Amino acid sequence: MHPTVVLTRLGLRLAGRSMVRAAGPITRGGGPYETSPHESAGHLTRRHFSGRKKTFKSQLWQNPGSQPAMGDSSNKKLKMASHDADIKRFDEVFQQLVTELIDEDAKNPEISDAMVRFRKVLEYTCPGGKRNRGLSVITSYRYLVTSDQLTEENIHRAMVVGWCIEWLQAFFLVLDDIMDQSQTRRGQPCWYRVEDVGNMAINDACYVESCIYKLLRRFCRGQPYYVDLLELFQGTTYKTIVGQSLDLITSPDGKVNLSNFTEERYNAIVKYKTAFYSFHLPVAAAMYMAGITSKESHDNAKTILLEMGRFFQIQDDYLDCYGDPAVTGKVGTDVEENKCSWLVVQALRLVNKEQRELLQENYGQNDAAKVAMVKQLYQELRLQDEFWKFEENSYSQLMQLINASHQDLPKDMFTEFAWKIYKRQK
Amino acid sequence: MHPTVVLTRLGLRLAGRSMVRAAGPITRGGGPYETSPHESAGHLTRRHFSGRKKTFKSQLWQNPGSQPAMGDSSNKKLKMASHDADIKRFDEVFQQLVTELIDEDAKNPEISDAMVRFRKVLEYTCPGGKRNRGLSVITSYRYLVTSDQLTEENIHRAMVVGWCIEWLQAFFLVLDDIMDQSQTRRGQPCWYRVEDVGNMAINDACYVESCIYKLLRRFCRGQPYYVDLLELFQGTTYKTIVGQSLDLITSPDGKVNLSNFTEERYNAIVKYKTAFYSFHLPVAAAMYMAGITSKESHDNAKTILLEMGRFFQIQDDYLDCYGDPAVTGKVGTDVEENKCSWLVVQALRLVNKEQRELLQENYGQNDAAKVAMVKQLYQELRLQDEFWKFEENSYSQLMQLINASHQDLPKDMFTEFAWKIYKRQK
Repeated sequence: MHPTVVLTRLGLRLAGRSMVRAAGPITRGGGPYETSPHESAGHLTRRHFSGRKKTFKSQLWQNPGSQPAMGDSSNKKLKMASHDADIKRFDEVFQQLVTELIDEDAKNPEISDAMVRFRKVLEYTCPGGKRNRGLSVITSYRYLVTSDQLTEENIHRAMVVGWCIEWLQAFFLVLDDIMDQSQTRRGQPCWYRVEDVGNMAINDACYVESCIYKLLRRFCRGQPYYVDLLELFQGTTYKTIVGQSLDLITSPDGKVNLSNFTEERYNAIVKYKTAFYSFHLPVAAAMYMAGITSKESHDNAKTILLEMGRFFQIQDDYLDCYGDPAVTGKVGTDVEENKCSWLVVQALRLVNKEQRELLQENYGQNDAAKVAMVKQLYQELRLQDEFWKFEENSYSQLMQLINASHQDLPKDMFTEFAWKIYKRQK
Repeated sequence: MHPTVVLTRLGLRLAGRSMVRAAGPITRGGGPYETSPHESAGHLTRRHFSGRKKTFKSQLWQNPGSQPAMGDSSNKKLKMASHDADIKRFDEVFQQLVTELIDEDAKNPEISDAMVRFRKVLEYTCPGGKRNRGLSVITSYRYLVTSDQLTEENIHRAMVVGWCIEWLQAFFLVLDDIMDQSQTRRGQPCWYRVEDVGNMAINDACYVESCIYKLLRRFCRGQPYYVDLLELFQGTTYKTIVGQSLDLITSPDGKVNLSNFTEERYNAIVKYKTAFYSFHLPVAAAMYMAGITSKESHDNAKTILLEMGRFFQIQDDYLDCYGDPAVTGKVGTDVEENKCSWLVVQALRLVNKEQRELLQENYGQNDAAKVAMVKQLYQELRLQDEFWKFEENSYSQLMQLINASHQDLPKDMFTEFAWKIYKRQK
């Protein structure tokens, strides 16, 4: 169960992953759920599916027959072949939604000036990411329904709900960037830093959030799952806000308290701030849309998806320190920002008294020399090895969890998620 | 129809309001919908209903037989007599809701620390106002239902929905104060100015908003009007955000453009930013709870309530300049803040070329001498007279509108609202 070969995350020694390879192929061309660099529509497609960077997984998308025989879904071929088309269509749906929402209200002369602004807000803050949260709704929906349910109308609705998740994220990110006083997001200045925006970005973010409910009303009202979706979005928003609060109170500016950084606190922040909206929400939404309402099924899916979300964030924390900025598109600042990162939590588990004092003196300060001291300590503590061990264990444990908990849900839906996030480089 | 006696708003010459007095009594003890000074629970009751400040209206509450015979509701006596008890109970419900929401999640060790913070957020930001938006739900509900519908459970639900409106307002106010960089709110520092809060107030405000939907779910799920309420709250939030945006783009910091300040823009800002959530939302919520779903009834109510909201805001703008700070509890700063106030809109209608230039040079700057120049111009233009004329006309027009549009809704419900807001001093 536990591979013995030590792996590197830096793209130099991608070998020896017998366990991982057996369960799912290695991806190098960028996984889902990255939150960093700006990519214009189409980049993701090009990078994943063409040229010399074509990987085992990219071949899989185009030729599902090569996929390991793990699935139990009859229309897998159709689903896989649709992926490229889905991405293209998803981007077209964004433009349709913006046009429809804005144009309708722009016809009202009372508020047409506000709509000029809000078009910019939507176009600046919602696209530009990898839109994997949104695309996950469609991917999951294809796994969950029968072929005859895959009507144009239903697929369009799944895309609308997918964009609602992307817009929910835009709402969070615009506000997070103000609270963290961040500089850039997706390769461009954060919205609040754009000329003449400033704190008006707060109201703009709230606009983005409120559009989610306009869209759900417009496209899903009358569907049997409408109320379930409303409650799912509202509940997920609540949980994410709770997670953001936990994160903020655990890492106050300029007040380093290492005893805050426990494994329990780390898990809670990650679960609430990231895993619910990034992993649970897209699949749960697709389940409701597919007519799956049983509490047991939703609980099973949640167990698996929150665990994936936890791994995803741990990976993110690892890449913040050890990722290649040329690949990740961002320079990590978790140490400077006094973040409750997985690395500092592991460090605190491994340190002796002197090393802990060194951490106490150097963590959470915007000082390159102090940051270097912390990173040097991470090296001494061999945190990369800790991560590699964790990654392999985590993957096999997740596969066990999927086997144990998927029940009547298609196992492939979960393993496909897992392949996308494990072994990502950015 | 048009009284000829010139009235003062400064509490010195409250006389000669034949038209108004015939329709509804004068209130001096504080009207509803004030947004300013802090009052602890119970103050409103004491001020309105006891001691030497007892007014005609306060007598009316206690002795509904003295009310002008305008109503058509059979259980008016019961409704009026319940008002005192409603206020007391409403405040008790707040504490119950906070306790229930917080205690439930505080039992979850993962997020209990966030709940310590959020209890403070709710207790700091939601009470302390006059809670008239919230109380309007109960008042309206009593008008709209039959006696047998006035069960303990239904009244409690109306109170919960009332608090949801108060919490919606708290969400807006916390964020508005950050965007406007305001200093105080309800007689205490704005939440973002409290020590160690700062921009975390943004997330705190979002928490308050998200609790609205937790409360509606907990208390109204399963009721036939649940989805109507969800959509009403979401739609109202959207409109208020649009109004806030209009306000912000019309009055940008340090960029005075008088041609922005048109009557049309003023009306749009007021309608979207204030009237929908303050006037339409409470009554529309009560209508849904009472089982009234007809579009026509809702449209009629909206027509009347948005007009009341417009008057309320014009009054607010008037009091910003001419109110007595000792009574209003706040010092107006609309001129300094480059606000699209009703006064500046009227001034622009009346000015000659030189006066317009004077406005252009002196408006929207934080400079006492320049503010004094603007206010001097307002005096020259006799804007107080303009307001008094407007107030009288507005009242009689509103009464006509109520007569023409109340249709199958109880007329008293609207006239009671009108009495509360006309002639307020703060």
